[in-house]
Amino acid sequence: MQTELSRKLGIEHAVFGFTPFPAVAAAISRAGGFGVLGAVRYTAPDDLKRDLDWLDAHAGGRPYGLDVVMPAKKVEGVSEADVEAMIPEAHRRFVEETLARYGVPGLAEGEASGWRITGWMEQVARTQLDVAFEYPIRLLANALGSPPADVVRRAHDRDVLVAALAGSARHARKHQEAGIDLVVAQGYEAGGHTGEIATMVLTPEVVEAVDPLPVLAAGGIGSGPQVAAALSLGAQGVWLGSIWLTTTEADLHSPALTRKLLAAESGDTVRSRALTGKPARQLRTEWTDAWDDPAGPGTLPMPLQGLLVAEAVSRIHKHEAEPLLGTPVGQIVGRMTCERSVQAVLDDLTRGFERAVDRINRIAGRSGQ
Amino acid sequence: MQTELSRKLGIEHAVFGFTPFPAVAAAISRAGGFGVLGAVRYTAPDDLKRDLDWLDAHAGGRPYGLDVVMPAKKVEGVSEADVEAMIPEAHRRFVEETLARYGVPGLAEGEASGWRITGWMEQVARTQLDVAFEYPIRLLANALGSPPADVVRRAHDRDVLVAALAGSARHARKHQEAGIDLVVAQGYEAGGHTGEIATMVLTPEVVEAVDPLPVLAAGGIGSGPQVAAALSLGAQGVWLGSIWLTTTEADLHSPALTRKLLAAESGDTVRSRALTGKPARQLRTEWTDAWDDPAGPGTLPMPLQGLLVAEAVSRIHKHEAEPLLGTPVGQIVGRMTCERSVQAVLDDLTRGFERAVDRINRIAGRSGQ
Repeated sequence: MQTELSRKLGIEHAVFGFTPFPAVAAAISRAGGFGVLGAVRYTAPDDLKRDLDWLDAHAGGRPYGLDVVMPAKKVEGVSEADVEAMIPEAHRRFVEETLARYGVPGLAEGEASGWRITGWMEQVARTQLDVAFEYPIRLLANALGSPPADVVRRAHDRDVLVAALAGSARHARKHQEAGIDLVVAQGYEAGGHTGEIATMVLTPEVVEAVDPLPVLAAGGIGSGPQVAAALSLGAQGVWLGSIWLTTTEADLHSPALTRKLLAAESGDTVRSRALTGKPARQLRTEWTDAWDDPAGPGTLPMPLQGLLVAEAVSRIHKHEAEPLLGTPVGQIVGRMTCERSVQAVLDDLTRGFERAVDRINRIAGRSGQ
Repeated sequence: MQTELSRKLGIEHAVFGFTPFPAVAAAISRAGGFGVLGAVRYTAPDDLKRDLDWLDAHAGGRPYGLDVVMPAKKVEGVSEADVEAMIPEAHRRFVEETLARYGVPGLAEGEASGWRITGWMEQVARTQLDVAFEYPIRLLANALGSPPADVVRRAHDRDVLVAALAGSARHARKHQEAGIDLVVAQGYEAGGHTGEIATMVLTPEVVEAVDPLPVLAAGGIGSGPQVAAALSLGAQGVWLGSIWLTTTEADLHSPALTRKLLAAESGDTVRSRALTGKPARQLRTEWTDAWDDPAGPGTLPMPLQGLLVAEAVSRIHKHEAEPLLGTPVGQIVGRMTCERSVQAVLDDLTRGFERAVDRINRIAGRSGQ
């Protein structure tokens, strides 16, 4: 499965895997794909350094990348405390009441909240970049908005390709103007932040909008036929995030969450503002229901919502409060029915791709193929 | 573009076109696809008879089908007047106030409302069937729910294939149990009634759920690459509705509406209950905004909403009240940028399909193809 982009990066399959787990990223790269480590959860530079050390040592000499969240809009002189102060008391009460209703205990003294919003703030993302540029990353992806011009320059000076996620052709063109090298077209059915245009419609629109920039299709892709479909739409590769969550290399720190993911069907996700304040697809839980309930206080805008719920989400995960327990995940969750190794997922994708190509050739009457 | 299903039906391309216009249905069948006439707007059997006469005479001897709306749940002894009486006065006032705010005149004396809900009621659908079975239709599609058992039997006695639309694998299995012959998997991005699962995820799920029944993919398909993608996902054909609305053979009776469709982008649709009471994708207009506004009275359940707005929709169309003027249409509306003949659309689909197959073969390293 080779495209111009996969050849340029020297990878075997045009499969890009986004994951918060270094072990998964390394396994994807070793298996011939391209592992991309999500950096948003790293607040301390040393933690990122430790994991990049590990990733670099275990990627088998294959290329890998990093995904950061770097808002293009810079808010000078605003601290996390300033933002915290903007959260209404009623919303804090709603969080505590909801957790109390489900009997979710607090965190132990000194136990840090694992899910912090600070990675979303520019100063943190820039510290992450300082660390990342010390490693031979081949790709830097920005998950929200266009990356700032100086970051693009810095990446290009180091021969690092810059990618940005887009939910519409308009977003994609804005990214192109910012000088990036490839666009990840993220469809409605994807996990995490998404727009409303589905992958089937979005991919060719973005391909046409930013031509000749390469485009990766994201959203709804978890099998070989879906890879074939995405590449038929003009993508130069696929960008998969959800499918790795139930691989044996992933460490969700919660057997209950893994069980929920394996049991969930494609209709069990919701595009909700509960996690960050912007619409993000995730498992539908009683937690997302509470935030989406018109009788409740509703969600706050980004970044307030993320700050507001950070500790609560950590408590829910830590104590495995099942009815509330969720994670960002796309509609392909219905296809995640057993734990498999990353290599097994890649093998399934490439074999399924070949079979889909056989089938489409038969339909096209190219029987010699 | 040949599948087992297209061979069975004796058509050249596995492209099924749903349309309310006999001229479009005939042109699709003549061009080697399979035209399916939507029957919901026919309240008088003679009107349907007249249009089926025309279609049969102009389909060039090629096969065609009919799409009806036949609720499986039968409500005995309930007349349209009984249902009308259930509509709250506040909702009627909201309709009149909204139309008055935009200065939309009434219909002339004796001028019938063109958009009637009665086609949705079972007795009307059954009258339509009595008419339809006098013609050599090859396919009967049910747009909402599973068709009743006696209708399936009646169709099979006449060698007519029965199809039903499904928005989830569960729906599709229910249809299969009802004895139908093929499933139309209608993704989130489709025009008209849709669920929330996108075509990329829904198609393979339905294919696997009802195997060995053939599946047509619907939603987000309006170009050759999208056809290739849908067939890669395991579909035996594609079902297109929106793309025909701006063909030269279509007659929307409103140049303003055609202009709006040609100008609309993929993000200009909304999945709203404004039209029927069930979520249906359509052009987003100030009319859908009014119904979706939390400050308004909100929509009524099916069939009340359809009855409530029937005359208003006719007035909006008749007088081309531009800000309110809409129609069911899918996200591929962004691709409908010029008026073309049905033949030109089919040519574009089949040529684009061939190019997409070329490309996927190059990616798969099958260069001899």
